[in-house]
Amino acid sequence: MTHPQVSMTLADIARHLNIPVKGDGNVAVSGLATLKDAGPDQVAFLANRAYVKDLASTRAAAVLLHPDYAQDCPVACLEIANPYVGYAQLSQLFDPLAVNRLEAGVHPSAVVAEDAKLGQGVRIEANAVVASGAVLADNVVIGPGSVVGADTQLGEGSHLHANVTLYHGVVIGKRVILHSGCVIGADGFGFAHDGTGWHKIAQLGGVILGDDVEVGSCSSIDRGALGDTVIGNDVKIDSQVQIAHNVHIGDHTALAGCVGIAGSTRVGKHCMLGGGVGLSGHLTLCDGVQVTGMSLVTNSIHKPGVYSSGTGAMANHQWRKNAVRFKQLDEIAKRLARLEKRHQG
Amino acid sequence: MTHPQVSMTLADIARHLNIPVKGDGNVAVSGLATLKDAGPDQVAFLANRAYVKDLASTRAAAVLLHPDYAQDCPVACLEIANPYVGYAQLSQLFDPLAVNRLEAGVHPSAVVAEDAKLGQGVRIEANAVVASGAVLADNVVIGPGSVVGADTQLGEGSHLHANVTLYHGVVIGKRVILHSGCVIGADGFGFAHDGTGWHKIAQLGGVILGDDVEVGSCSSIDRGALGDTVIGNDVKIDSQVQIAHNVHIGDHTALAGCVGIAGSTRVGKHCMLGGGVGLSGHLTLCDGVQVTGMSLVTNSIHKPGVYSSGTGAMANHQWRKNAVRFKQLDEIAKRLARLEKRHQG
Amino acid sequence: MTHPQVSMTLADIARHLNIPVKGDGNVAVSGLATLKDAGPDQVAFLANRAYVKDLASTRAAAVLLHPDYAQDCPVACLEIANPYVGYAQLSQLFDPLAVNRLEAGVHPSAVVAEDAKLGQGVRIEANAVVASGAVLADNVVIGPGSVVGADTQLGEGSHLHANVTLYHGVVIGKRVILHSGCVIGADGFGFAHDGTGWHKIAQLGGVILGDDVEVGSCSSIDRGALGDTVIGNDVKIDSQVQIAHNVHIGDHTALAGCVGIAGSTRVGKHCMLGGGVGLSGHLTLCDGVQVTGMSLVTNSIHKPGVYSSGTGAMANHQWRKNAVRFKQLDEIAKRLARLEKRHQG
Repeated sequence: MTHPQVSMTLADIARHLNIPVKGDGNVAVSGLATLKDAGPDQVAFLANRAYVKDLASTRAAAVLLHPDYAQDCPVACLEIANPYVGYAQLSQLFDPLAVNRLEAGVHPSAVVAEDAKLGQGVRIEANAVVASGAVLADNVVIGPGSVVGADTQLGEGSHLHANVTLYHGVVIGKRVILHSGCVIGADGFGFAHDGTGWHKIAQLGGVILGDDVEVGSCSSIDRGALGDTVIGNDVKIDSQVQIAHNVHIGDHTALAGCVGIAGSTRVGKHCMLGGGVGLSGHLTLCDGVQVTGMSLVTNSIHKPGVYSSGTGAMANHQWRKNAVRFKQLDEIAKRLARLEKRHQG
Repeated sequence: MTHPQVSMTLADIARHLNIPVKGDGNVAVSGLATLKDAGPDQVAFLANRAYVKDLASTRAAAVLLHPDYAQDCPVACLEIANPYVGYAQLSQLFDPLAVNRLEAGVHPSAVVAEDAKLGQGVRIEANAVVASGAVLADNVVIGPGSVVGADTQLGEGSHLHANVTLYHGVVIGKRVILHSGCVIGADGFGFAHDGTGWHKIAQLGGVILGDDVEVGSCSSIDRGALGDTVIGNDVKIDSQVQIAHNVHIGDHTALAGCVGIAGSTRVGKHCMLGGGVGLSGHLTLCDGVQVTGMSLVTNSIHKPGVYSSGTGAMANHQWRKNAVRFKQLDEIAKRLARLEKRHQG
Repeated sequence: MTHPQVSMTLADIARHLNIPVKGDGNVAVSGLATLKDAGPDQVAFLANRAYVKDLASTRAAAVLLHPDYAQDCPVACLEIANPYVGYAQLSQLFDPLAVNRLEAGVHPSAVVAEDAKLGQGVRIEANAVVASGAVLADNVVIGPGSVVGADTQLGEGSHLHANVTLYHGVVIGKRVILHSGCVIGADGFGFAHDGTGWHKIAQLGGVILGDDVEVGSCSSIDRGALGDTVIGNDVKIDSQVQIAHNVHIGDHTALAGCVGIAGSTRVGKHCMLGGGVGLSGHLTLCDGVQVTGMSLVTNSIHKPGVYSSGTGAMANHQWRKNAVRFKQLDEIAKRLARLEKRHQG
């Protein structure tokens, strides 16, 4: 694969987005860039008010923008109600992984069990391993070094990048993208203590990922202890995320990097957890909850909205003084109450 | 491997746990489930008071429970002092990985050094790599794509799942379970600064894991700088955990997901660190310390007990007001003291 | 590979560091150790005042130390201005990976694309995969199970340990060390929301790593959305770190374990981020910023210095009382202000 030199006209692009071009549709473009960086063969986009300042001076061939800004655009315009979604759609046109459509076939170094079922257009790359009973639907891609466990199922068009691991009995939906190093279906963290030491609880459940899920590099989604761990449709999971056994995540929810979710917690639909957020076990978060970065949630949340914990960074010498006072906070509150009482008396 | 249809009678189960059945021992069962979900061919358990409410209506074939609850059980009873341990023991009977005993042998695609020593019953799966000088005791299983470094030793019955990496000179005890993506023995983070840049300190120590250790997916345990990093017996480590060079963890300690432990820190026996806990370097935690989720520990702890830091989550608009005040906390405390003084005067 | 029995004399060591020996240069030594642990065939070092107490009783063959301490040294002395850097330099002499210089060559089980370019002395280990268009400069080592994506470039002497993954179009400098399980170049976390669900934004940028970079096990560095993610020269990255798309890290900066950096943030040169630190997206940290462990930074920092957030650990029963008061902090501050006002009135 060599980085493709995609070339299309503004008219091609407009047709792809089903919108008109204001300007010369014959201009050829070969990529996307920001308003600031775009050259005369690139399309830029204005999706965030903070970048309006870069519009007047852009050298782009054309700008994808909301009609409200069209009059201020010095170059050709591609007007669209949601320019960020438009940019997402255009980005696919220039993706070398999509453009260089990979050939189907099983690489001779891959090890595929005789009884694995492979749909049409399946591609299994070098040194991948597909175990007995696995079912790969049409157009599935298994990257080099990836391992698909026994009886695991992959829906149509799903793509495992290199060195992904799926344990046995995992069920993956359609068009799922799994990035390198992620592990789906490892044992949940279940042990019973007998007063002296630990007894392992075999993790007998599975993992179900819905359609259009994406999981980032080096993330872990553990299998259930008895029932399944369930990830809904269109859930987007970043890198370095941990999802423990029997967690349920609702459709369209997004989890940023380094999130950790403890066992049996249920996160609603359309939630967003910021980077490094931690959820304790056995909680319920309703639909539409947002939690800001590095917050710890130890109680269920029953009302949509934005939630936070923690304290902001400050100079260390100031922080030291304040952090010491945090340990006296209950005492401070009591002293204040006493003073108020005396004052009233 | 196909998911096994395990079938046994209640009498078989009772015999396995060395307890009597109260009810018909001839009833056949094929799995475990919660009180709520269990059908008439499954065994349920009552190990947590919170689920007593589900006992009266259970449809299970039998319930594993403490004798105190036997009178309230509508179905057959398996009475046991510690039902959670009993559940753990039963869970093993239904584990497909245990039931489908894997055949010994080296897969033809695996690359095993000529001088590696393999005990009886060793199984090395597809595309695994075992380097020179490695010693694998009886019944060791090396999963597909896993790599065992030079001179690394694995004790009897230890099991590496797929895509595990062991560096050179690592020593692993008996019955250790290592989940996919975990890395044992990578270089510790050691660099000396010369005023301009960094000089790498070669990490010359090793890693020793005791017997019955389990390490979750995508966790890292680094090798020592000079001496070894040492993980005691029966230590249970969840996913996404980082253990730095020269850390020592005492026997029976459990580390939940996303824990990070900095260099040379020593954690005692029977400790429990909640999810996302961070320990600074060069600390000592005595036996029996518990730290709640996402707490940061920057000083040694010499007394058993439960420790915490941080603040709980609240609505973001409230949090903003309070978090700003945190930066004024030392000033607030001083103002309060001044007011108290004046009031006394 | 067997752990090497390196043997050299004190004179050899002194010559390597370009310093004199005070004592018998003919004494043979076979390793390094701490002052406390060193035996008569090992060299110890004194790099931290805290260990001066161990100097008088050391059994080492010689001690690497600052000239100020030479008079208190009971054994042979290797005087050097920066003993910690001296120790780092000596450590390389005893590193089995360096001493057992690996032979060049491509293992027969590795899969290397026909059009990949391999320099002199390149070593590709068992079951590694090198894709089309990849360029490996002289003396590059690719560990077992590692995958090098299409068109990815590796500079002279760079070393991938086992099971590393590089995506397509990644550019790696010279003498870079990548530890097992790390993933460079996976897609950044970019999605556009259309009010109903997510549209994937193809990640069209790349990743550039400078010379002398080291990345720890299971860390993730994502590719850029449009431009590149850029890691400067001599940047040291520990295990379990997440670096999101379009982040820039300046030369000589060090990131400890479990750090997470959100998209488009720029970290200056000579910065140090403690374990578990989180940086929000689109920030700028100037050169020379240090952030202490597990702090969250949500605003840019324009002045060198040490920064912190969070609270220290305390006994849980105390913490509960104080954490509750944190939720009242704004109210407490207002009540205090009212009281002060009344008092003045």
